[in-house]
Amino acid sequence: MPELLFPLDSSRRFTDQEKIGHNRWHPDIPPVATVRPGQSFRVDCREWFDGAIHNDDSAEDIRDAPLSRVHALSGPFAVQGAEPGDLLVVDILDLGPIPQEDSGPLAGQGWGYTGVFPTGNGGGFLTEQFPDAYKAIWDFTGQQATSRHIPGVEFTGITHPGLMGTAPSAGLLATWNQREGALRATDPDRVPPLSLPPDPHDAILGTLTGADFDRVAAEAARTAPPRENGGNQDIKNFTAGTRVFYPVYVPGANLSVGDLHFSQGDGEITFCGAIEMGGFIDLHVDLIKNGMQTYGVAENAIFLPGNTPPQFSQWLAFSGISVTLDGQQRYLDSQLAYQRACLHAIDYLTRFGYQPEQAYLLLGAAPIEGRLSGVVDIPNSCATVYLPTEIFNFDVRPSAGGPTRIDPGPGAPRASMS
Amino acid sequence: MPELLFPLDSSRRFTDQEKIGHNRWHPDIPPVATVRPGQSFRVDCREWFDGAIHNDDSAEDIRDAPLSRVHALSGPFAVQGAEPGDLLVVDILDLGPIPQEDSGPLAGQGWGYTGVFPTGNGGGFLTEQFPDAYKAIWDFTGQQATSRHIPGVEFTGITHPGLMGTAPSAGLLATWNQREGALRATDPDRVPPLSLPPDPHDAILGTLTGADFDRVAAEAARTAPPRENGGNQDIKNFTAGTRVFYPVYVPGANLSVGDLHFSQGDGEITFCGAIEMGGFIDLHVDLIKNGMQTYGVAENAIFLPGNTPPQFSQWLAFSGISVTLDGQQRYLDSQLAYQRACLHAIDYLTRFGYQPEQAYLLLGAAPIEGRLSGVVDIPNSCATVYLPTEIFNFDVRPSAGGPTRIDPGPGAPRASMS
Amino acid sequence: MPELLFPLDSSRRFTDQEKIGHNRWHPDIPPVATVRPGQSFRVDCREWFDGAIHNDDSAEDIRDAPLSRVHALSGPFAVQGAEPGDLLVVDILDLGPIPQEDSGPLAGQGWGYTGVFPTGNGGGFLTEQFPDAYKAIWDFTGQQATSRHIPGVEFTGITHPGLMGTAPSAGLLATWNQREGALRATDPDRVPPLSLPPDPHDAILGTLTGADFDRVAAEAARTAPPRENGGNQDIKNFTAGTRVFYPVYVPGANLSVGDLHFSQGDGEITFCGAIEMGGFIDLHVDLIKNGMQTYGVAENAIFLPGNTPPQFSQWLAFSGISVTLDGQQRYLDSQLAYQRACLHAIDYLTRFGYQPEQAYLLLGAAPIEGRLSGVVDIPNSCATVYLPTEIFNFDVRPSAGGPTRIDPGPGAPRASMS
Amino acid sequence: MPELLFPLDSSRRFTDQEKIGHNRWHPDIPPVATVRPGQSFRVDCREWFDGAIHNDDSAEDIRDAPLSRVHALSGPFAVQGAEPGDLLVVDILDLGPIPQEDSGPLAGQGWGYTGVFPTGNGGGFLTEQFPDAYKAIWDFTGQQATSRHIPGVEFTGITHPGLMGTAPSAGLLATWNQREGALRATDPDRVPPLSLPPDPHDAILGTLTGADFDRVAAEAARTAPPRENGGNQDIKNFTAGTRVFYPVYVPGANLSVGDLHFSQGDGEITFCGAIEMGGFIDLHVDLIKNGMQTYGVAENAIFLPGNTPPQFSQWLAFSGISVTLDGQQRYLDSQLAYQRACLHAIDYLTRFGYQPEQAYLLLGAAPIEGRLSGVVDIPNSCATVYLPTEIFNFDVRPSAGGPTRIDPGPGAPRASMS
Repeated sequence: MPELLFPLDSSRRFTDQEKIGHNRWHPDIPPVATVRPGQSFRVDCREWFDGAIHNDDSAEDIRDAPLSRVHALSGPFAVQGAEPGDLLVVDILDLGPIPQEDSGPLAGQGWGYTGVFPTGNGGGFLTEQFPDAYKAIWDFTGQQATSRHIPGVEFTGITHPGLMGTAPSAGLLATWNQREGALRATDPDRVPPLSLPPDPHDAILGTLTGADFDRVAAEAARTAPPRENGGNQDIKNFTAGTRVFYPVYVPGANLSVGDLHFSQGDGEITFCGAIEMGGFIDLHVDLIKNGMQTYGVAENAIFLPGNTPPQFSQWLAFSGISVTLDGQQRYLDSQLAYQRACLHAIDYLTRFGYQPEQAYLLLGAAPIEGRLSGVVDIPNSCATVYLPTEIFNFDVRPSAGGPTRIDPGPGAPRASMS
Repeated sequence: MPELLFPLDSSRRFTDQEKIGHNRWHPDIPPVATVRPGQSFRVDCREWFDGAIHNDDSAEDIRDAPLSRVHALSGPFAVQGAEPGDLLVVDILDLGPIPQEDSGPLAGQGWGYTGVFPTGNGGGFLTEQFPDAYKAIWDFTGQQATSRHIPGVEFTGITHPGLMGTAPSAGLLATWNQREGALRATDPDRVPPLSLPPDPHDAILGTLTGADFDRVAAEAARTAPPRENGGNQDIKNFTAGTRVFYPVYVPGANLSVGDLHFSQGDGEITFCGAIEMGGFIDLHVDLIKNGMQTYGVAENAIFLPGNTPPQFSQWLAFSGISVTLDGQQRYLDSQLAYQRACLHAIDYLTRFGYQPEQAYLLLGAAPIEGRLSGVVDIPNSCATVYLPTEIFNFDVRPSAGGPTRIDPGPGAPRASMS
Repeated sequence: MPELLFPLDSSRRFTDQEKIGHNRWHPDIPPVATVRPGQSFRVDCREWFDGAIHNDDSAEDIRDAPLSRVHALSGPFAVQGAEPGDLLVVDILDLGPIPQEDSGPLAGQGWGYTGVFPTGNGGGFLTEQFPDAYKAIWDFTGQQATSRHIPGVEFTGITHPGLMGTAPSAGLLATWNQREGALRATDPDRVPPLSLPPDPHDAILGTLTGADFDRVAAEAARTAPPRENGGNQDIKNFTAGTRVFYPVYVPGANLSVGDLHFSQGDGEITFCGAIEMGGFIDLHVDLIKNGMQTYGVAENAIFLPGNTPPQFSQWLAFSGISVTLDGQQRYLDSQLAYQRACLHAIDYLTRFGYQPEQAYLLLGAAPIEGRLSGVVDIPNSCATVYLPTEIFNFDVRPSAGGPTRIDPGPGAPRASMS
Repeated sequence: MPELLFPLDSSRRFTDQEKIGHNRWHPDIPPVATVRPGQSFRVDCREWFDGAIHNDDSAEDIRDAPLSRVHALSGPFAVQGAEPGDLLVVDILDLGPIPQEDSGPLAGQGWGYTGVFPTGNGGGFLTEQFPDAYKAIWDFTGQQATSRHIPGVEFTGITHPGLMGTAPSAGLLATWNQREGALRATDPDRVPPLSLPPDPHDAILGTLTGADFDRVAAEAARTAPPRENGGNQDIKNFTAGTRVFYPVYVPGANLSVGDLHFSQGDGEITFCGAIEMGGFIDLHVDLIKNGMQTYGVAENAIFLPGNTPPQFSQWLAFSGISVTLDGQQRYLDSQLAYQRACLHAIDYLTRFGYQPEQAYLLLGAAPIEGRLSGVVDIPNSCATVYLPTEIFNFDVRPSAGGPTRIDPGPGAPRASMS
């Protein structure tokens, strides 16, 4: 194991640790450690809600989840010699749930969760169809995940960090705040909102205190979206073995990481669609000096995925086009096309006995593939979603004999909005 | 070889054959043949433009391509016993370029083409960045494709039909015309248009003549977009070995097929991004009676992809978010995010010596994967595009040593808009 | 389609064609055609027994199969400029069953066969356990194979030529005859024999006649074994897309090919274990001058397999060690270890209802993997055989519930030795 | 992490631990712990030579390696309710090098070794060609291995236990001793020996002492070979995610495990061909009562490999036949055919600049595939070995331009036999 540079004690809150991470993006959050190019190191990661979600059969914690607290990030780690214009090369050497702890109250201690967030508290990809809160608990047995809330499936996790990135420069941060504010201003009362403003409430900013804390907290960007610095990209293929290249915007690069997922489908469609967990990640860093210019990578990560993802060889795929559920034609809207493809998959799975929310939760957590299949054939985009048939312990393929009916059990816990 | 039910003579126009296909969707286009459930049969397919694009070093044929003539479709094939509400099960047994003809003037005779359509004649996914017409010719050697217009790459084709589907009912057709017309009415003078209206000009409607022809031509839907009946889905994973299930909307189902592709990347981003060819396809059909209700498949194809796609194990991936090139924030727009990811890939490839249009054409034709990676993290969608590194005959990965420079050669032919 | 240089008329015997192939190896068999480096060409291939095995429910044709007639080979093809010491580079562009003929009396016309050869006529890998003759007929539907003689399985063919190679030099041929004769002399009356001597009976030697025929027929090597020139290697991974490099021993290289297989498991364990068929193969040839010395390839083919084999992701594996069935310990004998692994697989499959010979035939034909797992741990070799579970239409995995029982049907036809 | 039932302190010898394992097979070695069906547990494993091999640039430790001490095994673990006739179901949940220790003197602390054993001390697959001792040290960076002794390669480890199995019954043990003794008696002075007799010297037998120790030590079987109980099968595909089924021969089954490998090629050809390491393994056990009879598994493991092995898509393959290096024909000898294929691969790699022993060591350690390609075509077996081309950082494929020459560096340390 490489040297542990950011330890977390599972019995204590994220803000009550030896080193304090952060939950906002800002260039002035001080590094927790400095590493050399060529160095490997281990980082503990807390699950994104710092323990607010429990291993139980109620979705009230999802309904009331404190979004202002996310994401609990480990770092920043400064890299010696990194300067704006460089590319930071990060190898994901290994990652997993919390080592040596396979039971306990914290996600990552042998279990994880996935949730459908209600429309009033974040929402999700299909929030119009699923406005309430739902939760599913997943148990880990080695690489495998099963859920008492979604029977009939078992799959190998495609474990990855949902969020990693470098610190923005002051200029880049200002750009974010400007453009996201401009969008929000077009419909400021929308629920869910169009974007999230800086929010000092619940901000965690490492060792900053006093006036520095207040200034940074007022400016710092929320961590929900992916942006130029990487961030919350939620790319399920960021598995161990991945090499990723980030633009460097500040001296030292200031790399942060968190939001570990035991598994996730493309799109992470239920918002908290991945199986969330705390755990560890081992990283190796290096630099390509002036790489942003050399390779034309001024923004957004590029990466070489690892070569040990779970293998599947048979898929059942659903397609969707950019027509709304009530029949309106939209112009080449792949977001909508993917929603329709996912809704088709959900409708299909209900024919086998699943409750719709079970199917929705499954699509968020299982290693489904979401593809942009057609993006130019006016007026319809075509998106497709591929389910590996091997994750079901019954035959999920269509046949003349009709679908097998499973027992959905008590189903996924639901909490209606109060 | 199964019985050839729809032969095409390569020396004659699509409208001057033993059996006449169609290039519009309408329930009243008469079947060219009737097949039994359980029957296998071969269908010849003409390339979508019926020979208007030539194996030369000029893009003027792309610039002037007659969009009113597409897609040259083979069929419809009526299936005995098929009734509205059934699912039509189609197995793609085999497909390929025109057998026994490896040279000649028709795409599919040992070669194929891909084109960037100009803004004034169809446009494409990145038409703002690439408003002019470009073309690349690809030569086939067995399963492999190479292009004199894009040096340094060679790849195994992921051969598939771009377009297959059942006939719409009269009601469904009316719905299409209504909703697409309503969209078009919001900006009727837009170039490229928001959608394409029925167009009797160049309509091919099988054996219809006289008043029937005129009526149907005036109502029939264009074949460009994918719709509820399948249609121009351009799903690159529709390879041999695929089993696909279509809703049946008219008695007999009336299956049609065409637009064969030697290869294509997810999204077919240059509009005519796939490597277009004529050829043959062997199909086997069956029915699941009342399957639409039984399986909840009221619209859009579901499918089990074949298990012999070309294998790659190393990918270079690019990510993009839903911010426009001039910095405007859009709300969870995966279409835009994928555009940005593709533009990043193009920028990157130019560092190795490619002209931007070569890179763009390559992304349309090569077996790239386009993924919906994050669709819920407000306000940014995250889309990713994966390039198989093995298709390049040089090392395309980033390194401290900087990029290899290739000789781009004379490049892809370009025709500016007159 | 590349130019057809070696056509075969399915209605006529192999010896009654426009061009006559051969069924022995000898440097003096004249080429049927000369090709240029860089040239692509098509070759028709006759199934190895030239029609002696029929699509029926009797194994008498297997029992009486005329081994002196095999293999019906297409060629030789001389390559311009090829000289001893070069490497001949052969790309397998495409191959398949007889085009345009999906029914008829000749294997390759929509069907193929696999057989267990009796001990008295060739034998097989497990001839002590299976001394009699058995046959299974396989029907082709696109890429898929099924058999009325072995229910419950369907798989995608891994189509390949069982036999390809260059002509031996006179010196190399003499070496073969010497060493194989010396082995045979150690037990000349063994059944099956230790090796096969030259046999003028049924020899086919292209256009040779008279004294030349008699001389060559008396010297020419049989085609059963693989040797330095490639030959009957029966490597199932020689699929389309493969590039193979052969040593050149005579001017012109004199490449021959035949023995096409629709599918085969590693080892081709029932002797005629592959699904035999006639068909076509498209080849492209090139030269690496002096490549034998440059690359240290003085004998035996080296190759880069194609990248479109059928994909499977779940396997059930059996292991075996080098102890005989009656308990004798052998020293690091991987041949024996693989026999024991295969016998274990057969025993296992009988628990699901298969007759032992059905299981044996299946292991010969299906795309199983045979691995040399341990070859150094004295005194036991360990070999393993991997069955893809997806080829069974029932769950073939062990479980606490015990095995599903299938109906084996009438079983594989059997002919006892007269 | 599951409960650690067998801890090892890296600073102490294997015989000086809290719990003492064993290095012989015998039914009377007492279990170190008892587990329930359904239980998961962690086991620490010591590298097979208990620290006798060092991370240095000398092969003298390989030359003098104390073979009487191997394999240091963890266990036995008794399983509640297991009775002879049952199948013991073992899931490999996870495994890896020694956690939290990435440097130190013990293999598994961030490094591992592979060695060519000299003819006088064990020998190896190609001991006639490589009679001396060689060693290579491999460094681990996450999942990746590199060696200062073999430049130009880097690969993802296919991590697995080389040895796992259940205890033999007294009768089975007697059978082993009888048959292996009978073989040894045919050539008792052979070097290397034909088999290894029981050897009380260096025997480790758990908590046994006194007369019990002496009796068991005199009878207990050596752990080198794989046998009916599983044992040293050295199957590289025993990765995490594998489910393996062992026959149960004694009450409690008495499962033992050890000999962890960071990576290995099929065959483990250099004897100590795998990259040896200490580490941990997490297991889950269950029972199929009376499974031996139900499934026909009276001996040797059957298994379902995990679905996360490293993926490669391009291979360079070499073939060999059963003719000795000096030209003698052997009858269907796949052991010999694989030797010849491996020698061909070694010859080939030397053309790129490698020393022969570097190539040999590489084939032992890298994830090569060894296949039984033809086992019935008298008189020649055909075996093939597949090298993944992606593990080389140069183009290892043949081409008209000839091979790239690498700098082999100082090479692999060699110790001649004294």
